[in-house]
Amino acid sequence: MKINPERFKKDFAELKQFGLLENGGVTRVSFSEEDMAARAWLEKAMEDAGLEVSIDAFGNMRGCRAGTEDLPAVMVGSHIDTVPEGGHYDGVIGVLSALEIVRTLNDGNVKTRRPVEVVNFSSEESSRFGVATLGSKAMEGKLNLALLNKLKDKNGISLYEALKGCGYDADHIESAKVDPKSIYAFLEMHIEQGPVLEAKKYPVGIVTSIAAPTRFKVTIKGLADHSGNTPMGMRKDALAGASELVLGVERIASSEAGEKTVGTVGYLYVTPGAMNVVPGKVELGIDIRDVSMEDKNKAVQAVKDLIADIAERRHLDIEYEQLCNDEPVALSDRVISTLQETADEMGISYLSMPSGAGHDAMNMAHFTEVGMIFVPSAKGISHNIEEHTSMDEVCFGADLLLKATIKLAGE
Amino acid sequence: MKINPERFKKDFAELKQFGLLENGGVTRVSFSEEDMAARAWLEKAMEDAGLEVSIDAFGNMRGCRAGTEDLPAVMVGSHIDTVPEGGHYDGVIGVLSALEIVRTLNDGNVKTRRPVEVVNFSSEESSRFGVATLGSKAMEGKLNLALLNKLKDKNGISLYEALKGCGYDADHIESAKVDPKSIYAFLEMHIEQGPVLEAKKYPVGIVTSIAAPTRFKVTIKGLADHSGNTPMGMRKDALAGASELVLGVERIASSEAGEKTVGTVGYLYVTPGAMNVVPGKVELGIDIRDVSMEDKNKAVQAVKDLIADIAERRHLDIEYEQLCNDEPVALSDRVISTLQETADEMGISYLSMPSGAGHDAMNMAHFTEVGMIFVPSAKGISHNIEEHTSMDEVCFGADLLLKATIKLAGE
Repeated sequence: MKINPERFKKDFAELKQFGLLENGGVTRVSFSEEDMAARAWLEKAMEDAGLEVSIDAFGNMRGCRAGTEDLPAVMVGSHIDTVPEGGHYDGVIGVLSALEIVRTLNDGNVKTRRPVEVVNFSSEESSRFGVATLGSKAMEGKLNLALLNKLKDKNGISLYEALKGCGYDADHIESAKVDPKSIYAFLEMHIEQGPVLEAKKYPVGIVTSIAAPTRFKVTIKGLADHSGNTPMGMRKDALAGASELVLGVERIASSEAGEKTVGTVGYLYVTPGAMNVVPGKVELGIDIRDVSMEDKNKAVQAVKDLIADIAERRHLDIEYEQLCNDEPVALSDRVISTLQETADEMGISYLSMPSGAGHDAMNMAHFTEVGMIFVPSAKGISHNIEEHTSMDEVCFGADLLLKATIKLAGE
Repeated sequence: MKINPERFKKDFAELKQFGLLENGGVTRVSFSEEDMAARAWLEKAMEDAGLEVSIDAFGNMRGCRAGTEDLPAVMVGSHIDTVPEGGHYDGVIGVLSALEIVRTLNDGNVKTRRPVEVVNFSSEESSRFGVATLGSKAMEGKLNLALLNKLKDKNGISLYEALKGCGYDADHIESAKVDPKSIYAFLEMHIEQGPVLEAKKYPVGIVTSIAAPTRFKVTIKGLADHSGNTPMGMRKDALAGASELVLGVERIASSEAGEKTVGTVGYLYVTPGAMNVVPGKVELGIDIRDVSMEDKNKAVQAVKDLIADIAERRHLDIEYEQLCNDEPVALSDRVISTLQETADEMGISYLSMPSGAGHDAMNMAHFTEVGMIFVPSAKGISHNIEEHTSMDEVCFGADLLLKATIKLAGE
């Protein structure tokens, strides 16, 4: 049993239109006009597939295909909102493959013991309100009115106002919390957003755990001096200190913490920033991620020690603020085994791998059994109009998801 | 014989008013209304001191006190234009001390064999037209109409238009070239703009040579990737490569080139510059200075080798553009000796030192015998409203300049 690639491509081509840009990319920011139009399209497609659609107080869309018994459901899905000037694959292929799985079950007149649910999480991208995976957080019961009022977009519109504007019942946001007992398992297919599958030539990745970031904002203060008249030995060069930190974060993540640790200095601002002035101040951001909290703590401690060392040795004043320190999430061993067995049966070679990026699956894993699969991202590019995965690869992944769904829904 | 400190302070207080800012600093950009008002004040002061004032096609102001013989003159001076939001000492103390020297000679009824000339060079700061020491370049004969039309300020006003607007004869810019035979020596007093004199507790520096910069604009291209999903070993991090370069420039200048070599990365821009993205591109500027061309070439070659090494080892695409490669200038041994002997006679302790910054003295040294003295800059700060030198220190330097002028004008 396989999904129908032509029907999938038709869905993909239709959904692509909502927020399509002249440059070929897409801007479908959460709760925007484009997002709402795409949701209306999706609601109709769900209904056409015979699903019973329900939309919660956060706008999360669920479409249920009944099982033969009244048991907790197998939920499959992802999100259709995008970053500004993003690509067409991130999130979208997870929702459309879930929809296509249901249609394929309908075509084959397959009855499952458990219900199968298609889900579209609202506001997965952090672009608009600064926080990612909000929809699954709502389902987990982590959102409240105070937070909805606090989170604002760049135009000052609060998340509460945005929800109300879209007709959602933001005043009863707590009602979006799902009963953990009502869901048996959750499956998500997503693009990798990294270069590993393509480089190692695997068509599919089976995600074992989701890394979580610890982030720091670091401010390094030295002394701005004339570049010509300040001897090397009399300088307090903030950029030289920052450069040691950049290389230190790289070294610690590469070889001094865990095997899967990654560490990045992604932005760095130099003040005053002139050709003939020794930099007096640098601000930079450090992002450290790991699937092991222990390894991540090791890396974080090493970075803190390095900061203290640089400050003392170079007579710099270095302050840092910890922006977050999230717990990595291990996915369900049982669902991972099901996915691996299914892939083996289908003759699909797969890579068991961590996810360095966060996903709705991460929040779902806090209260149900979660499995996740990756399909390759060309050149590892995402959040960019050049984001690409071939339709063959997407459908290959969807077929694996279909088989695993049938298995889980039969348990 | 000493200058009159009270008269000097009065001049200083009057000149300070032209372009004085509420925050205490000064904006007197070249050929601005403030600069022109200050020049008018200076012209009157020169005339009041009995000087015969002449103004050339670039606006350079010269005031001549005749000698007893018709010989090449001893010229003394600096500039009164400032950077935006600059301080009151840079340049100004050199012009005012020259004016005060002439008055002191008048007071003492001192006749000198050679004429003594006070000079105010136009447009020393590069702030408006992007090129420094333009007035002395005009005297050297290095300016022409094509260049005057090419150099434009941020409002699109060309140097030619600015000169014409101030009533100067820009059409005959070549006429500003002085006959090298008409000048016997040039002396300039300036603030150090560095921390050395203050740190080593010398009241005066006698400049032996003026360093010249070699500058590069460097563009490092790597690959912008997701900070969570790109394993350390699969990255092409442009900022990590840039950091190696920053530390390499520091190391080379500190210990691998000459004793006086300085090397600085003053600005650095990261693209895309986001917390969760491995930097794909960095642009930075390298400024290397030395009083020895040989040592500077050694440093420059070491930096070029390092760039090639970083590019190869990190698989980065690094391009660089050499913005300038100026020759350092050795000042006149004979005038340096005169200054040193005079200081010794006066019991003044001095430091023989290079100038890391460029000055009009640099261009003058291309065609006459040049000597230069520095007075201390508090904390090494310049081009800033906090620029400061005590009046005692300034007058101390001016007294040395007075004695040296009398000696040279008597030769």
